[in-house]
Amino acid sequence: MSTPAPPPALHPDVVSFAALLGTWRGEGRGEYPTIDSFGYDEEVTFGHVGKPFLAYGQRTWRQPDRFPLHAESGYVRLIDGVRAEMVLAHPTGITEVSEGSWDGLVLHLRSSTIGRSASAKEVTALERRFELDGDVLRYSVAMAAVGQPLTHHLAAELRRVV
Amino acid sequence: MSTPAPPPALHPDVVSFAALLGTWRGEGRGEYPTIDSFGYDEEVTFGHVGKPFLAYGQRTWRQPDRFPLHAESGYVRLIDGVRAEMVLAHPTGITEVSEGSWDGLVLHLRSSTIGRSASAKEVTALERRFELDGDVLRYSVAMAAVGQPLTHHLAAELRRVV
Repeated sequence: MSTPAPPPALHPDVVSFAALLGTWRGEGRGEYPTIDSFGYDEEVTFGHVGKPFLAYGQRTWRQPDRFPLHAESGYVRLIDGVRAEMVLAHPTGITEVSEGSWDGLVLHLRSSTIGRSASAKEVTALERRFELDGDVLRYSVAMAAVGQPLTHHLAAELRRVV
Repeated sequence: MSTPAPPPALHPDVVSFAALLGTWRGEGRGEYPTIDSFGYDEEVTFGHVGKPFLAYGQRTWRQPDRFPLHAESGYVRLIDGVRAEMVLAHPTGITEVSEGSWDGLVLHLRSSTIGRSASAKEVTALERRFELDGDVLRYSVAMAAVGQPLTHHLAAELRRVV
């Protein structure tokens, strides 16, 4: 293997995502009509390699014992500077293509395709809203699943740590 | 945040994936009827957090200048010890649910759902075959895309480095 190259410049297509880059940690709260509400710790990372997308990774942990709960990984793209596309894999056997808008502060996405493996739970739609407020990143997720309509599911407030 | 817990035990559902765990590096070759053939460097990682799935990450680089080429991230599950499910996000706006079998040496998967964002290339099917041979991991990928039928696309040989 050759020596690693120096960190690349952000690709022009995703320059307006620059403020999302980094690692974010905080706490969230989950609820859904079919489950007990719960609090969780979370870490979200947005990274890049100089290509026209950001890599996105997310992990959550149960409070207070830090047992791993959810995770997600994927990529975010920006088309023509305003149209946002997020593709995600969930370890529950779900894939998500979500599309929407980014105005520099709010990333608002709604699923256009949900893929499910044979053993996955019946998730049929997801809506995500990320809101950037300096070094604070808030998000909320609504989900339609197991016969429920699109319903608020998750909300968290994260602070930039790196 | 509390102190990180010690590394967890592998979840019983994915014990037969143990030999995949680690970081693998090597070289591959890509070809397709619509493009020039190319060589690439690659790194693949299979990890776990004690839950019933492995996390999978992949990156490739152009030879010899190490410009980033493709990436993928997602998860692999095993149902009833033999039925394998892989969910992946690709930074090209593609999601993939692939399902198949794992016999302890060969992981053979065929896409059951491909999701595509509005700007994604027209990929319609993927078939993946990973073959474990001690500290060597070989894989091949066939792809149906841009009007071509399922056709050999990628083959690589990786060696365990961690």
